[in-house]
Amino acid sequence: MKFKTIEWLGDRVRIIDQRGLPLKENYLDLRTPEEVYDAIKNMAIRGAPAIGVIAGYGVALAALRDGSKEQILNKIELLSKSRPTAYNLFYALERMKKIVESGAETDKIIREAIKIHNEDIEICNKMGEYGSKLLPEKAICMTICNAGALATGGIGTALGVFYKAKEMGKVIKVFVPETRPFLQGARLTAWELMKNGIEAVLIADGAKAFILQREKVDAIFVGADRIALNGDTANKIGTFGLAINAEKIGVPFYVVAPSTTFDRTIKTGEDIPIEERNPDEITHLNEIRIAPEGIKVKNPVFDVTPHSLIN
Amino acid sequence: MKFKTIEWLGDRVRIIDQRGLPLKENYLDLRTPEEVYDAIKNMAIRGAPAIGVIAGYGVALAALRDGSKEQILNKIELLSKSRPTAYNLFYALERMKKIVESGAETDKIIREAIKIHNEDIEICNKMGEYGSKLLPEKAICMTICNAGALATGGIGTALGVFYKAKEMGKVIKVFVPETRPFLQGARLTAWELMKNGIEAVLIADGAKAFILQREKVDAIFVGADRIALNGDTANKIGTFGLAINAEKIGVPFYVVAPSTTFDRTIKTGEDIPIEERNPDEITHLNEIRIAPEGIKVKNPVFDVTPHSLIN
Repeated sequence: MKFKTIEWLGDRVRIIDQRGLPLKENYLDLRTPEEVYDAIKNMAIRGAPAIGVIAGYGVALAALRDGSKEQILNKIELLSKSRPTAYNLFYALERMKKIVESGAETDKIIREAIKIHNEDIEICNKMGEYGSKLLPEKAICMTICNAGALATGGIGTALGVFYKAKEMGKVIKVFVPETRPFLQGARLTAWELMKNGIEAVLIADGAKAFILQREKVDAIFVGADRIALNGDTANKIGTFGLAINAEKIGVPFYVVAPSTTFDRTIKTGEDIPIEERNPDEITHLNEIRIAPEGIKVKNPVFDVTPHSLIN
Repeated sequence: MKFKTIEWLGDRVRIIDQRGLPLKENYLDLRTPEEVYDAIKNMAIRGAPAIGVIAGYGVALAALRDGSKEQILNKIELLSKSRPTAYNLFYALERMKKIVESGAETDKIIREAIKIHNEDIEICNKMGEYGSKLLPEKAICMTICNAGALATGGIGTALGVFYKAKEMGKVIKVFVPETRPFLQGARLTAWELMKNGIEAVLIADGAKAFILQREKVDAIFVGADRIALNGDTANKIGTFGLAINAEKIGVPFYVVAPSTTFDRTIKTGEDIPIEERNPDEITHLNEIRIAPEGIKVKNPVFDVTPHSLIN
């Protein structure tokens, strides 16, 4: 990877500020759990696995700054409120909570956060290896949002498949929907794939079905924010519609996610909470108003794809 | 209607400049066929039926400014190159050409253009009446792009259905996808429906499937840019994917278009030319770059919905 999404520096954690991309490659040093909370809440960092990793470091920072068990547990409570849909967040915080509750020293708490990060790096590599075997020598693919190195502690989930396929000498072309409202496709996936030498073609979100059909796409790989026990998958808004299109047009549709994205307390997708974000994300772009004053807005930023639509 | 999309003023044609909406309600006076060509090409006016009407007036202006038959025919040739997908353009120009070739006086040429406009007004009213009968007393609907008064000489095609339903006392709520890249939904449909007292709810393009399912949408009404003999329909990019979603989720999907949108020389959708527009529409918004420098782009602005998906 030609950049580092998350880097632990012993007394602070450094992240690439994804809000500036693709125009500015800025890095932020986070020194407190509150700064980690803000970074997740305000989407300086996003992507379910990356949120899990940074949440672990948030707890490590709480331990470093303030040793008391009670206050660290309070910071865990705070961090759990940063993004409702991403399950890796709760998985990582649960692990950190157990260590903290066991009365572990600060060093051990920090090592647990680093371990969560290292596991994510490893699992990304493994998923990439499995997924890349599904692709022909010359593959035309599609993804949605950003499920790449920017969304994880490693090489990514869906995009990790493309990086591994490239390592195997395969020629990969990836159609990237811009992914309104936050434009993770246009801003992040396009940037990340280009930076790492993979051919990316940006399209409007509405163009997915037309491109699947006319460009003879071989396969779709997407990430996940939370997966229910039956396989129903919450992911970026637009994934559900894309999966329906893929089934009708006959394109295999794969979800790439670590086991930490599975929420074993949830039976089906109906029980997955769906985050709704600020209407301004739809009515404005870069502070410029693009819709009439007073217009009503609905801005769910995730949807649920039933397991029957997933290969 | 609380505004006039196209108005013939005897020696010029006045249009609302749709590029300024919803922030500015500006009107342009077009005095030459070249100005009409530019207005269509640069999308000051859009929507297949509206393009047909304004093209008729473009020929009327050619007759007014320069009586020679040969030069009027040259201007018809120019106007025919303004937008490739909208069939009403060719229909209107064909009608005007016949009148011009018959050696008609300027007055008669102008009357033909006004007649095309009046026919469009009337057919919009009729389509609205038919379509509105398909809706229950309280209806939740979806549309795409702008198939409204702004897209026609009258009350619109798809949106005309909602206006007529409202006249009948029905309560209509309409979900409006923003319709990237040109944002006709956010800028035009949202503005037009609000201005005329119909509840509109703006959503991201990726949210269509989620909203169809979770909000229990009763019916989808869309316009058309060109219809093949077998019923395959070219319309704004995103329509094809929406129709597939509607079939899977079980929402009736209606295309509302005048007979002038039928291209009787084309058997199936495969023969419909699809306009690709400037990549800047995807990489920029209001002149602000939102994608990396050098990224490849594919920007087809129409797609083709097979007749089997249309109710």
